[in-house]
Amino acid sequence: MGTDNTSDPDVSREVAAFIAERDLFAHSLGIELAELKPGFSRTRMQLAPHMVNGHGLPHGAVIFALADFAFAAACNSHGRTAVALSMDIHFLSSPRVDAELEAEAVEVRCGQRTGLYRITVLDQDKNIVAELHGMAYRKKERFLGETAQETEA
Amino acid sequence: MGTDNTSDPDVSREVAAFIAERDLFAHSLGIELAELKPGFSRTRMQLAPHMVNGHGLPHGAVIFALADFAFAAACNSHGRTAVALSMDIHFLSSPRVDAELEAEAVEVRCGQRTGLYRITVLDQDKNIVAELHGMAYRKKERFLGETAQETEA
Amino acid sequence: MGTDNTSDPDVSREVAAFIAERDLFAHSLGIELAELKPGFSRTRMQLAPHMVNGHGLPHGAVIFALADFAFAAACNSHGRTAVALSMDIHFLSSPRVDAELEAEAVEVRCGQRTGLYRITVLDQDKNIVAELHGMAYRKKERFLGETAQETEA
Amino acid sequence: MGTDNTSDPDVSREVAAFIAERDLFAHSLGIELAELKPGFSRTRMQLAPHMVNGHGLPHGAVIFALADFAFAAACNSHGRTAVALSMDIHFLSSPRVDAELEAEAVEVRCGQRTGLYRITVLDQDKNIVAELHGMAYRKKERFLGETAQETEA
Repeated sequence: MGTDNTSDPDVSREVAAFIAERDLFAHSLGIELAELKPGFSRTRMQLAPHMVNGHGLPHGAVIFALADFAFAAACNSHGRTAVALSMDIHFLSSPRVDAELEAEAVEVRCGQRTGLYRITVLDQDKNIVAELHGMAYRKKERFLGETAQETEA
Repeated sequence: MGTDNTSDPDVSREVAAFIAERDLFAHSLGIELAELKPGFSRTRMQLAPHMVNGHGLPHGAVIFALADFAFAAACNSHGRTAVALSMDIHFLSSPRVDAELEAEAVEVRCGQRTGLYRITVLDQDKNIVAELHGMAYRKKERFLGETAQETEA
Repeated sequence: MGTDNTSDPDVSREVAAFIAERDLFAHSLGIELAELKPGFSRTRMQLAPHMVNGHGLPHGAVIFALADFAFAAACNSHGRTAVALSMDIHFLSSPRVDAELEAEAVEVRCGQRTGLYRITVLDQDKNIVAELHGMAYRKKERFLGETAQETEA
Repeated sequence: MGTDNTSDPDVSREVAAFIAERDLFAHSLGIELAELKPGFSRTRMQLAPHMVNGHGLPHGAVIFALADFAFAAACNSHGRTAVALSMDIHFLSSPRVDAELEAEAVEVRCGQRTGLYRITVLDQDKNIVAELHGMAYRKKERFLGETAQETEA
């Protein structure tokens, strides 16, 4: 009802291809988009030896990057350009340094101009590693087939 | 008064060396620790071409990583092991894709068991890119000269 | 395993009575504790005419208060004194000024010293009004039958 | 430059009168608007005996309410209707139950559609009680002399 969303799986598939191809930083970390539906996404990655912090633990910024990519995919899944306004991350347990991680982003609410997403990061044993909220600002233009222009929230 | 902190610049220098050497992920992104004093740090980096998201803009997770490293340095600057409980990031403007970024972390309050830090990310023209809060949990052991053992908050 | 939690419904009932009786501010707003189990709580309230902000809409601080009470009940439900470290609230839709609101708090993870809770606020038509995360610091003492002493995180 | 803001102290004075008169919930808690300039505000209150939580400490929701009012005043200070998208509060120390509290809201950045504010709560001895970030969504209409209509972000 008027939020200009799509629940069209074809659009989401196109978005998936677009996002997966063009997010070079996610690529560089080996983050994959495992699933994308309207308002939902799942990403995964294998931690690499250099992904540790000063205490030798899996790096919070890597865990954030995995969750952020799930958030970006989910909030752009309707085909309208969405950008992050804010995210909050809560670190709940430290995975093993060689863990395989998975993040799921779920749409809590999608309004005309903003949307809220909840993202959960799990390790391969389904231990919860982190939980986040991401707030997206939804621009007016659709990004498929055009270049994003509006750059300011 | 009893928070077991140090305002000893020597300890902070040791911490700086320790952190700068061992945070392999920050290394891999070219993030440098430019300054560290008790309760304060400054980090910087040069954005690289692969650090973009699906819309071709500087990646939120890279901006987070720069801020996170400043936070980690500042909350560990007293020599006691500190780990992140939670962080919230607010994205305020998008820097140029080839920007040089700087983050400053300031200690808002440091208690016995937790500490709050405010982190600001600026580009080379002093435009504000992001502002964050980071909440740290402070373990009992000091990490210089020993190995961190306690792994759970 | 060793988090000193209880799943004893009797303890939770005692906590419920304790909390419901002593939280004078929640009382003054007509907030009730509708349900409490280990790691879970539900609160509700009827908005009153004076609970509006400058734009004539239901006040964000009232919605926060309802959620905060659910959080407090859930994080204290194991019988160990817990205090709020931080909360983040996302306002998703504005309820009617005479709405009846309900909040549910769910334990995402409870560690030795900290715990994370997710709180959802709904109106009587099950529209989502707000979603929050609350991070609690868990003190060593149990508060039933004794007075809270430790005052600093 | 195009953010449709005002730095006109007269507009801010009008806003101050409007806000101070109509926020009935802030009134009911004895919260006063002590100062309002474009992008800045200061509020204060005297804690009352019923403003305690289940542990007998000053209630987090009261501290939030004081900060929220400062945030509302500051983000509406330009004369354009602004509503809260999200707030995060970090509780740093517990004031005395009879403390006099003060909150200051500072504009970190004000864009076309969103704005970020940082709010600090102090007690009468200048101890820091809490620090918050508030993200506002700025509607198109100005609220002085008209009724707010747009109700959804």
